[in-house]
Order: sequence, then C-alpha cells, then structure tokens
Amino acid sequence: MRYFNTRRTVRRYTDAQVPEELLSEMIAAAAQAPNTGNMQLYSVVVTRTAEGKARLAPAHFNQPSATSSGSVLLTFCADFNRFEHWCKVGDASTGYDNFQAFSWAVIDASIFAQQFCAIAEMNGLGCCYLGTTTYNAPEIARVLSLPSRVVPVTTIAVGYPVDDDTPMSDRLPLEAIMHKEVYRDFSDDDIRRIYALKESLDENRRFVAENGKQTLAQVYTDVRYTREANEHFSRLYLDFITSCGFKLPE
Amino acid sequence: MRYFNTRRTVRRYTDAQVPEELLSEMIAAAAQAPNTGNMQLYSVVVTRTAEGKARLAPAHFNQPSATSSGSVLLTFCADFNRFEHWCKVGDASTGYDNFQAFSWAVIDASIFAQQFCAIAEMNGLGCCYLGTTTYNAPEIARVLSLPSRVVPVTTIAVGYPVDDDTPMSDRLPLEAIMHKEVYRDFSDDDIRRIYALKESLDENRRFVAENGKQTLAQVYTDVRYTREANEHFSRLYLDFITSCGFKLPE
Repeated sequence: MRYFNTRRTVRRYTDAQVPEELLSEMIAAAAQAPNTGNMQLYSVVVTRTAEGKARLAPAHFNQPSATSSGSVLLTFCADFNRFEHWCKVGDASTGYDNFQAFSWAVIDASIFAQQFCAIAEMNGLGCCYLGTTTYNAPEIARVLSLPSRVVPVTTIAVGYPVDDDTPMSDRLPLEAIMHKEVYRDFSDDDIRRIYALKESLDENRRFVAENGKQTLAQVYTDVRYTREANEHFSRLYLDFITSCGFKLPE
Repeated sequence: MRYFNTRRTVRRYTDAQVPEELLSEMIAAAAQAPNTGNMQLYSVVVTRTAEGKARLAPAHFNQPSATSSGSVLLTFCADFNRFEHWCKVGDASTGYDNFQAFSWAVIDASIFAQQFCAIAEMNGLGCCYLGTTTYNAPEIARVLSLPSRVVPVTTIAVGYPVDDDTPMSDRLPLEAIMHKEVYRDFSDDDIRRIYALKESLDENRRFVAENGKQTLAQVYTDVRYTREANEHFSRLYLDFITSCGFKLPE
C-alpha cells in the first residue's frame, strides 16, 4: 500500500535505455491482468528507435516525455483485428462492429496499460500517460501502420527517472470519490471543502495568476480543456472509430 | 514481476468480511494512479450490505461473485458530476458534454479500477471484474442513485479467496499482443500458431463440445458474445450515455 500511496508521474528520464528483455517481461506480466471474456482485445506498439519517436512525437504535440532520448513509448490500442482474424480462420461469424464491443476493448486496453504502469514503477521505472492519444488517433494509427479495427486508446512514456524530486500530485479527499451504498450528491459547500486543498496549493494559485483567471476551474475550462478543442477532437476521434468499423446505433 | 505473472481471477470468496478501513485505504491508494489532467473524472460506489447487493446483483445477472456473502461490489464510474459542480461554483463555463470528455473519464475510471485490483490482490484479496456493467448501466445507475453525468464503466467484486486452486487464465504469446515500431499484421498461419495453445486446452475443448460447435471461436461468436446481444446492449449503453449529457457529434 505504501508503495502505491506515494507513486508519482515521471516526465524526465535519464539517457539509460530500458532493456528490451525487461520491457518484454513487463508487458507479458501486464497481460496477466483481467480482461473481458479472455478475448484480450488489445495490443501495444513499442516505439523505441529515435526515428520512430521522431515520427510519433508530433502526434503528442512533442511533449518532453515523448521526445526524451531515454523514454520508450507504448501505444495501447483497442484491437479487434487479431480476434476477428481468429474468428474468420475458425469459420465463426462475428458481431463486433458496434459500440459495446468497442467499450470492452477500451476498458481492456486501459486495464492492461495500468497494470504495465504499476509493474514498471515497481521495477524502478517512471511513467507518464500521454492523454493526447485520443486527440490524434488517426495520425498515430498512420505512423504505427495500424490496420483497420485497431484504435489507439492511451500511450505510456516509460524510462528511468531523473532523480529530481518530482512532487506527488495532489488528490481529492476520499469523500469526493467514494460513495457508500448509494451516490451521495454534493452541496456547494461540500464542493468548496473537497476542492479547498487543491485550490490552496502554490502551484495551482500560480496557474490561476499566470493565466489571468479568477479561479482554478476557469484554468481548466478556458485554457487546458476548452469546449472548442474538446468538440473538435470528439469529432476527429469518433470519425476515426467509425472508420475502424465500430458503428454507432441509429 | 513474479507476483503479477501469477495473478488469477477469484470468483469464490470466504464469508470473512473485507474490513471497512482496509477497503478505504486501498481505494485512497488506488486514487494515486494517473488520471487525465488531474481532474479525477471518476467515482466508486461501494456496495457491501446484503440488501444493497441483493438490489444490485440482478443487473449483473446474479453471477456468483456478485451474490457471494463475502464479496464487496465496487462500481467504478465515469463521473463529470462532481467536476462540473466545482466548475459551476468556480464560475467556469464547461464544455464537457462530448465524446472526448467521456473517453477521458472511461479511461480514468478503468485505470483507477485496475490500480485498486492490483492493490487488493497484493493485500491477499481476490478480485473479479463484472463486465455486465456496460450491459446494464441504466439499471445500475438507478439502484445506486447515480446523478446525471455519472456513467457506470466497470465493477469489481472483491473478497477473501476460498483457497480452491483457481487456475490462472491462459494468455496469448507475446507476439500476439506486442508490436515493435509498427503493427505487423498476421497471416492465417500466424493466427493458428498464436491461438494453438488456447484451442488445445481441455477446458476450451470441453466448451466447444458442450456447445455443439466446431471451433472455439464459434463459442465466442454464437454463444458468449452474439451479434444480437452486442447490438442490443450497444443501443442501451449509448442511449444511456447520451441521456447522461454526453452528446455525439452530428
């Protein structure tokens, strides 16, 4: 418990390379994580060459954890390509071109990714998720030569941490995220209490000031995750998912 | 690594109750897992009373891990209710009624769930995911009094394992799930080789025979995950997601 309590996201890596054998062992161990009906509806593409990373990094807006010479990039995908190929070889008629099937694969890919993250961190490596994966999935698919029926879901950058005392991220108190028996909705006062620590942190006060905003929430809505960007990337992602053969019900 | 390599899903639990304090500690530790922009777009509803479980279990088709007297059920949800309430209190105008925002929350909830699973298993508990959550989300939401903007994503049953030598689940060889630099698509022979072990297992041969099928793939497509059920539950889940205020682009 103590270990998990104190984990932190690592965005800066030494030049030491992650050994290929260790990486394979960690991925194999992560695949022992649970998945839907043991269909293993996921795959991971490992990008470790300088050339490969140079081609992939722009899709992640060239964030430092993607361009660092010490990081390996793991793109975790929702994958029906392999499973349906098996069904075809086994003379089985599939019905997985729908949102339910896509949902299983997204959940499975995320669980697989997080099990990898936990294993890597326990082996002394540092990890950073790249949330940009759902923004630029079409470009990522092109760079990684993903076949149809394979949708990128999330990416982990992994490498040996520069020992720079990265602070732990703040988290909301337990009452914010855990409900007993039924969901207990919040009053305005509950919300103020729950977010008080987060809003009081120096780093967050600085964000508010630097961005010329009144509140930290406005930094999220007006700067970091705006309606315009969210709607643009929603359309891109959903069009791509549809083009990969996951139809939405009429 | 050795630990993660040998984990197994546990569906039968002793009558020993999971201590409430331990459960809270594990949930708090799991929340230190990574999430999108530190928005923590998830919540978990804990069902541990006999009455609560009796109300919830039918939504999971009364599978034994849901009805066992020793299991606690944790419903992990994609949650914009709390975050948007905070934005409202902070006079911030949100743009999270879209598929991109929903995707972040689904991935975050899945990562949170899996970190909980890893922690619970390291504490001697056994876990089982209930994939029925995406089937019967509307019913689950009703039983748990989920407000709008909260969508159930997955459920974990957790309890102390009956020491019954549950076998580990088989997994595909690494070449099936890991690709180097680019996705290397499979030939029919690759597929046969990759799935050879799975198809040869006694348990899977029995499934094929019991269901009167020719191949294991047909058990998946014709019995376990049929087109008819997948399309039915796709419509149900997507309608529910839309009713929770996540619009799909036109």
